[in-house]
Amino acid sequence: MAGLAAGVGGHAAVVDGASAPQLGLMPMPAAWSVTTGRMAITGQFSVAAPAHTDARLRAGIERFLRRWEERMGFELTRDAAAGASPAFTVTCDGPGPAVAALGEDESYALDVTAAQIALRAPTVVGALRGLETLGQLLASDAGGWHVPAVTIRDQPRFQWRGLLIDISRHWISADAIKRQIDGMAAVKLNVLHLHLTDDQGFRIESRKYPRLHECGSDGLYLTQDQVRDLIAYAYERGIRVVPEIDVPGHTTSWLVGHPELASQPGPYAIARRWGVQDPALDPTNEAVYAMLDGFLGEIAALFPDAYLHIGGDEVNGKHWSASPRIQAFIREHGLKDNAGMQAHFNRRLQTIVSKHGKKMIGWDEILHPDLPSGTIIHTWRGAEALAKAARAGFQVILSHGFYIDHMDSVARHYANEPLPANTALTPEEQRRVLGGEATMWGEWITEETIDSRIWPRSAAVAERLWSPGAIRDRDDMFRRMEIVSLRLEETGLRHRANADAMLRRFVGEAASPAALASLRVMLQAVEPVKNFQRHYQRTAVATQRLPYTGLVDCVSPDSPPARKFADAMARWIFVPGERDAAAVAPLVRQLAGWRAAAEQVRDTLAPVSLRTREAGPTIQAMIELCAYGEKLIALAGQTERRDEAWLKEQLALLSRLAHPPGQWVELMPAASLRLLVCALATDAQRAGMPAEAWRKQVEKLAATKPPKKTAP
Amino acid sequence: MAGLAAGVGGHAAVVDGASAPQLGLMPMPAAWSVTTGRMAITGQFSVAAPAHTDARLRAGIERFLRRWEERMGFELTRDAAAGASPAFTVTCDGPGPAVAALGEDESYALDVTAAQIALRAPTVVGALRGLETLGQLLASDAGGWHVPAVTIRDQPRFQWRGLLIDISRHWISADAIKRQIDGMAAVKLNVLHLHLTDDQGFRIESRKYPRLHECGSDGLYLTQDQVRDLIAYAYERGIRVVPEIDVPGHTTSWLVGHPELASQPGPYAIARRWGVQDPALDPTNEAVYAMLDGFLGEIAALFPDAYLHIGGDEVNGKHWSASPRIQAFIREHGLKDNAGMQAHFNRRLQTIVSKHGKKMIGWDEILHPDLPSGTIIHTWRGAEALAKAARAGFQVILSHGFYIDHMDSVARHYANEPLPANTALTPEEQRRVLGGEATMWGEWITEETIDSRIWPRSAAVAERLWSPGAIRDRDDMFRRMEIVSLRLEETGLRHRANADAMLRRFVGEAASPAALASLRVMLQAVEPVKNFQRHYQRTAVATQRLPYTGLVDCVSPDSPPARKFADAMARWIFVPGERDAAAVAPLVRQLAGWRAAAEQVRDTLAPVSLRTREAGPTIQAMIELCAYGEKLIALAGQTERRDEAWLKEQLALLSRLAHPPGQWVELMPAASLRLLVCALATDAQRAGMPAEAWRKQVEKLAATKPPKKTAP
Repeated sequence: MAGLAAGVGGHAAVVDGASAPQLGLMPMPAAWSVTTGRMAITGQFSVAAPAHTDARLRAGIERFLRRWEERMGFELTRDAAAGASPAFTVTCDGPGPAVAALGEDESYALDVTAAQIALRAPTVVGALRGLETLGQLLASDAGGWHVPAVTIRDQPRFQWRGLLIDISRHWISADAIKRQIDGMAAVKLNVLHLHLTDDQGFRIESRKYPRLHECGSDGLYLTQDQVRDLIAYAYERGIRVVPEIDVPGHTTSWLVGHPELASQPGPYAIARRWGVQDPALDPTNEAVYAMLDGFLGEIAALFPDAYLHIGGDEVNGKHWSASPRIQAFIREHGLKDNAGMQAHFNRRLQTIVSKHGKKMIGWDEILHPDLPSGTIIHTWRGAEALAKAARAGFQVILSHGFYIDHMDSVARHYANEPLPANTALTPEEQRRVLGGEATMWGEWITEETIDSRIWPRSAAVAERLWSPGAIRDRDDMFRRMEIVSLRLEETGLRHRANADAMLRRFVGEAASPAALASLRVMLQAVEPVKNFQRHYQRTAVATQRLPYTGLVDCVSPDSPPARKFADAMARWIFVPGERDAAAVAPLVRQLAGWRAAAEQVRDTLAPVSLRTREAGPTIQAMIELCAYGEKLIALAGQTERRDEAWLKEQLALLSRLAHPPGQWVELMPAASLRLLVCALATDAQRAGMPAEAWRKQVEKLAATKPPKKTAP
Repeated sequence: MAGLAAGVGGHAAVVDGASAPQLGLMPMPAAWSVTTGRMAITGQFSVAAPAHTDARLRAGIERFLRRWEERMGFELTRDAAAGASPAFTVTCDGPGPAVAALGEDESYALDVTAAQIALRAPTVVGALRGLETLGQLLASDAGGWHVPAVTIRDQPRFQWRGLLIDISRHWISADAIKRQIDGMAAVKLNVLHLHLTDDQGFRIESRKYPRLHECGSDGLYLTQDQVRDLIAYAYERGIRVVPEIDVPGHTTSWLVGHPELASQPGPYAIARRWGVQDPALDPTNEAVYAMLDGFLGEIAALFPDAYLHIGGDEVNGKHWSASPRIQAFIREHGLKDNAGMQAHFNRRLQTIVSKHGKKMIGWDEILHPDLPSGTIIHTWRGAEALAKAARAGFQVILSHGFYIDHMDSVARHYANEPLPANTALTPEEQRRVLGGEATMWGEWITEETIDSRIWPRSAAVAERLWSPGAIRDRDDMFRRMEIVSLRLEETGLRHRANADAMLRRFVGEAASPAALASLRVMLQAVEPVKNFQRHYQRTAVATQRLPYTGLVDCVSPDSPPARKFADAMARWIFVPGERDAAAVAPLVRQLAGWRAAAEQVRDTLAPVSLRTREAGPTIQAMIELCAYGEKLIALAGQTERRDEAWLKEQLALLSRLAHPPGQWVELMPAASLRLLVCALATDAQRAGMPAEAWRKQVEKLAATKPPKKTAP
């Protein structure tokens, strides 16, 4: 990790990488250098803010100190003794804008010497960012608590670093949202995008049209008072709150109380299932625009941010096509088709949004030459859509590649570069790429699981958006993410604690502590199914009201032991000279350990816990998969030829074992074994090829898609 | 446990104890019988409330169903199919009083057969109590999810079953209080006593005298809106909320903003240390009464409960004695002394409380013949004080013996019988004993630790106050408390999850999972120091601002493994025929296991974690204690005489090892080894004595008090 001790942005490291302390920072700063020495942190630690100060800065400093105190276990003095200079000075030039705003200066400079810590920032928000960095620098060793001597010059690469939280599909309360805000602040995310309305729930109080939330939310919605409180809470942490009111599709919940606004006659009920729904607002009905004017006026007044997100995605047009009135309107106004109809709707909407003093954001679908240039396109479709919007002169934010709800490895999100080095965009077009947003869609989350779906993985997205593009070492990111996971827990997030509690409920009171411990070991190798597999692998129809307390909800993506196993397997398979007995022993031991744990679960837990018994196929698959892997590794030493039929048979077996039916989980070692099978099948070709080329070939062979639908 | 299958209140068991399912209920009902059969719980489970229904009952049923769904992992139908009769009927006669009231009928009848569940109750609160019982009856085995067939007739033994939460010494937020309310409801506690003001914090908004909370709380107080919300939340769960405004002592925080009300000139600062403080309101100052009239008027309007607790405890009189003005007043009015002065103050206060339509409650100290008969005496002093108040004609509630903040074994609280069989009180006097309250005083708790200090142990206090006095089997209580601990976690309580998270912070990021696991094993044998030891064992002066994130805060009282070890040791020492090789092996194995874990912690965790290193003396003491215990058990087979000097030496060693300095923890095996040492020392006398007499003698010898002050 020598490279990490050197600053990226032009600052040279003063000490060489080998002797420099490994920093646990996330996101990494724009530029830093580690110098010699350290500042000891003792009970006499004192703080002063000699320049600008205000309530927000004081509260930020107090949160910072309290977290350190709780980690170290002793109280800090805070005020310097008379005549003494404070250990830590926060020099802030001014308060920054009174409303958190796009483009606010978030830079800071942090200098730690053996004698003093100095944090300087032009704004309070910059100072808050610097406090989070300093908070992460606290370290301990035999010499005591200390901060290594560093020089940091930092500012974000992108100004829009967001987290979308969908509180419509499942209700997420204001308290749970506050926890996420604390997590965002810890990793320097700065936009909370609240997806407030959708087919499955209208989650915001409307005082002008109370039937919207009263009929559309099962009583689960944010009151306007709660929203104001949330915005203040976010502002305290330098975070904007951008509301999304998704129209004209995704509006079933609106129509429960207002069927007269629909494109087809009602009555309507709150949607309880997932996927694109047919209902949509009637874009030919003047009452729809009158209501949008009134309601968006409320939203505009409630949320001080300059932007208002109007969704605009996934209008399937079925209800419009089925309406003679709407089709006649399209013909009469020369709108060509349903897409033209939506463009017409968006023009009307744009006028309303402007009238209430806001700039408009919408998903890819709203892109149209008529849009005013201040509009932001939010792309869920990818690099092409992003380039198209930027070339058309619009600012753009990227969420494609940041869909954290897919439960995919965060390495993929980390590698999702909004502006790759080989981008074809001009510098001006590149400047239109404001940043991106991780999307926590709500189909598969509850208040109990949302923390483990967002954290610690969103820290990697935060780093992608904050840090220089050159910071992209996957292994070092994972090393630091394990540290930041503990730091995030200190802010009150429950990504680990809730998973433990859910597992206790899952096994029930008849389970012995030893049996539960075995289950925990086995689950190191288990993650939720990826991408849309949970939609496809159905035992029952997935609805909003299902309890989300299954095995899949207890496990998390990015299991560190599973990742470490996969990395070690890949090294053993591909790195020349690694495929020897010494390297293989830990791999076999790991598989044997998971197998033994699964056998324990089968023998001791399944008989006494009904839910573990339901997970029987998963437990059995884990036993078979690990045993298979142990045998397969033994095969690797043998030189016999393996034919196509053998390969096909092994891949089929692995596909079956990787996705045991009924629990929506994936057994992670299967992917490594898949690689090994493909390597063994092509071993004969290896001798004549460069190592890297052979690896690519094996990876390509292994990447054959698993079946989309698996029988339950 | 055969006795437990039979109802206590006159109902005979229909099946014999041996074949009856062990019920996991807590508190146990007044009368029950287990019959044959079971009702299967499937997705078709439906519910109806054919008689009275209202929003509170519907919400209670929905909470009940949701908890079952989350435990079982599937959705329940809720509405019966047309023409079919519902699986579960809740027949409620009426709503009960609109404000939760003392003496409200909480009874219910629950009948489960293979075909149907019927719950009947005269009030909604009774139905809510029955729903909690039914919730605890859900069981699973190879035959699936089910409820055993039972007949339950239940009502509380005492009508006042409270939990006091002190939010003054440390701030406990409304959210954290709500969690405790859910826990209370789960075990049928019905009074939340909020200790709102004390020397260390004025935690309630006063709109008439805003300087009270503004100057006295560091900004940490309940707003009146939050209080209304809390009261509504508690009412939804059939729980009263009684405010305590402690006067005239315990008022330092009042005087920060209002020094003119003090007995000695100010200025005053919020007290940051514990123990009885000197400041007190000036009982000769008419402005004090005017302010109390105004402020208590606000409190009376805010809290709908009929009672208002005015504290009245621990006025040390120092500031009164030092005031010539107050002493002159005492002489002029013939009040004799400071106690007479306080009685005078209480008479004035009583008039104010009455004027605002409330009945008064106060601690023992307010007892005085002049008090009106509706007054309740809240006793922290014990059986004599309780009897004195009851004989004087006052109603009384008991907290002596229920001081859960002492971290003592809950077995003691469970045995704390308010009305023992041999009570000297007349039936009329006995009726004046309304019940009791567990007291969660706030010196050593934070929002992070409060759950593990209250739960699951308060379930045992709840049972003492709800269930018939004949229900007092300690071992069965502990068996059920382990089950109820999981049920309490399902309500959202964090007694287990937060402890895990705190331990992760304690060891820090350098700790390996294996090292952390060893620490967890070692900590099975570690509990917080008992009674007032934390006050006495000081390394630094304990203040309100210390971080409460040490080892003592990560461990909990009533560790099940520690208790099971102690029980097995006692059996081995005392039960004739048990002191053989087969019985001793698990004891030695347990000690060796704890020792090995402690050695692992010393070798792997202490070098990388600064805080574990600080806990070095505790780790070392655990290693020595377990090694000593292993040797001592080996000695037991030998017949050599041991003299006084030997005994003294062993007891001294054990006292030292039991209370390692600096971490405020107690090593639990020490108590068992103490018993063993005493047994070995008196072994020679054993032959001539009845087993029970010898046991008593050994226990008495072992019960020599440990030193009150231990050097840090």
